[in-house]
Amino acid sequence: MTIATGQGAPASIGIVEKRFHRFADPPDTMVLESGTRLGPITVAFETWGRLSEGRDNAILVAHAFSGDAHAAGRYPGESGDDKPGWWDFLIGPGKGIDTDRYFVICANILGSCMGTTGPSSLNPATGRPYGLDFPMVTIGDMVETQKRLLDHLGIDRLLTVVGGSVGGMQVLEWCRRYPRVVRSAIPIATTMRHSALAIAFNEIARQAIMADPNWQGGNYYDTGRRPDLGLAVARMVGHVTYLSDEAMRRKFGRRLQDKNDFSFGFNADFQVESYLRHQGSKFVRRFDANSLLYITRAADYFDMTQRPDPIDSARPGIKYLVISYSSDWLYPTYQARELVRRLKRAGQDVSFCEIEADCGHDAFLIPDERLSNLIGGFLHGIAAA
Amino acid sequence: MTIATGQGAPASIGIVEKRFHRFADPPDTMVLESGTRLGPITVAFETWGRLSEGRDNAILVAHAFSGDAHAAGRYPGESGDDKPGWWDFLIGPGKGIDTDRYFVICANILGSCMGTTGPSSLNPATGRPYGLDFPMVTIGDMVETQKRLLDHLGIDRLLTVVGGSVGGMQVLEWCRRYPRVVRSAIPIATTMRHSALAIAFNEIARQAIMADPNWQGGNYYDTGRRPDLGLAVARMVGHVTYLSDEAMRRKFGRRLQDKNDFSFGFNADFQVESYLRHQGSKFVRRFDANSLLYITRAADYFDMTQRPDPIDSARPGIKYLVISYSSDWLYPTYQARELVRRLKRAGQDVSFCEIEADCGHDAFLIPDERLSNLIGGFLHGIAAA
Repeated sequence: MTIATGQGAPASIGIVEKRFHRFADPPDTMVLESGTRLGPITVAFETWGRLSEGRDNAILVAHAFSGDAHAAGRYPGESGDDKPGWWDFLIGPGKGIDTDRYFVICANILGSCMGTTGPSSLNPATGRPYGLDFPMVTIGDMVETQKRLLDHLGIDRLLTVVGGSVGGMQVLEWCRRYPRVVRSAIPIATTMRHSALAIAFNEIARQAIMADPNWQGGNYYDTGRRPDLGLAVARMVGHVTYLSDEAMRRKFGRRLQDKNDFSFGFNADFQVESYLRHQGSKFVRRFDANSLLYITRAADYFDMTQRPDPIDSARPGIKYLVISYSSDWLYPTYQARELVRRLKRAGQDVSFCEIEADCGHDAFLIPDERLSNLIGGFLHGIAAA
Repeated sequence: MTIATGQGAPASIGIVEKRFHRFADPPDTMVLESGTRLGPITVAFETWGRLSEGRDNAILVAHAFSGDAHAAGRYPGESGDDKPGWWDFLIGPGKGIDTDRYFVICANILGSCMGTTGPSSLNPATGRPYGLDFPMVTIGDMVETQKRLLDHLGIDRLLTVVGGSVGGMQVLEWCRRYPRVVRSAIPIATTMRHSALAIAFNEIARQAIMADPNWQGGNYYDTGRRPDLGLAVARMVGHVTYLSDEAMRRKFGRRLQDKNDFSFGFNADFQVESYLRHQGSKFVRRFDANSLLYITRAADYFDMTQRPDPIDSARPGIKYLVISYSSDWLYPTYQARELVRRLKRAGQDVSFCEIEADCGHDAFLIPDERLSNLIGGFLHGIAAA
């Protein structure tokens, strides 16, 4: 768990390493929420900082839908020009999640394609990628694999669990499943359950993939043809929901791309078209279409208001910091307020903050001192308690 | 222009007939805004009511993106169960647009596939459907074809021009091009120009179609294969933008479709999924994919703030009634207010009303007495002036 530091930019954690933990080997496969069994399972993860002797300074970071375990630092051989981890502004020495004080873990979620077992992994029963034979996984199943990883690392208490979007769902699920493990929780830009609007956008993304003949019922891995066009459209849909009307107006407006007048054709005339096409084609190089299907489905199924363990009936004892963004229209502030109301009704200790930002849902991924300070201050309080 | 009435429901205009006007036969083809020439052009249209002897009671209704000329009444042979025209609640004897008083015309827009010339029409140069050889058309070109139709009908003055969404763009374009023809204008749920967000959604819809291999570069008409899957995804995208978060919550919430629990698969579990799939597959039966490309492009290009005739510099003299809907997030009220501000700055006579409704952009297509009364009252005032 020792990490080489000091080789990156001054304020970065430096060079990090992706590691793997394998468990649930047959016959001890894991029982999923659907009742199906899955195994073996590999979880890709990274850690930063040092676990204290009292093992009481561990923080679990949960990533969003298309994220990965690489939340901070750089990989060996990467130059300063390479992008560091996706939350590098927040995780590092002296940062909001201070790696001089805390031991921080992030694991790639079950069903993904960034090192953890998912539909593109080999199915041991066939020796070929699972495709749609991969069982449906839930946010609960993702949390379960993270729990197995913590057990393996010898961590039985979390100072906090923190994450945005689908990561925030995992945060809430941790509180529901393991209220005795979690001391505090920071759900960011998230919701107790998807609205019909959020389900609709996910369904459109799924339909775009499944409409691509190269998808081939999910069994495309060995065919040399991948549903790239469908996946690109799916990503464009997602991308628009991560932005906001204001952000797009500011970022693109009606500006044209490298031209002074309309082409009177179907090329990308507007910058926003060019940007979306670029986002779509960039995404297909790093993400698996089936993983998108599985993870969006898990997000749609997620519902903290559901029996037998609705969030209202949770045992008090966890300190919450709920954060929303004013221009997030995927998980608007009214949904965060509903979460706060329910937690308070259950007697929980809840702080709530809506951050004014015009960049939409993706705001939690954009460097922002307010987020760093909020989280840093909250963690100080928890650690000192 | 006489219309049989009294055969439908009591308050309906009754049986109507689709008619056609053909013009711009070579060599007298029409010059489009892009500079390209197009001809011959057929315009499908319907009329209701009677033109007065003074020819001073004509109202032009402009339809939205996927609409058609059939705004009111029923076609012969249709039963009472068949859906009447798309604005039947507003157009008819004694209704908001009162066919006992006014002569009402609606024409299918250029580039569409509902009787007016568009990409699915025969290209006289090849004897085969145009496909992408159809020239790009603009909102201005649509207005120009409507003007030719009015000339043909002997109408040189419009009591009002009224329409919602892309229809509202045509209304504004009429005021810019023909301020001496238009006495009043009712732009509803529309905008002076598309925001980056609106362009983004249109671009996603276009990409969904063009990603479908059955699209075949737009030349699918003779092949027996049509880009139905891509078009369905495009429609789903559009459909979500026509609704609102509130409307979808009320209409669907998280209710499941014909089941009590999740299927843990990719079938339509939620009602909203089932609804979107239905909308998608229904749409492909009635609409042409290339027409979607052309009309969305025309809407994206539309810009009333552009030189040489920005709306601010318009000559006063037209009375405007601008209507927006509180939950319309495709063309939000702030955009209607910007239009109103600019019109007032140009010295125009403008009334503005935001209708409180939680059903999103599509609200203008939903029977609502407030809309009928607003328009009815406004027209009384204009006709009496």
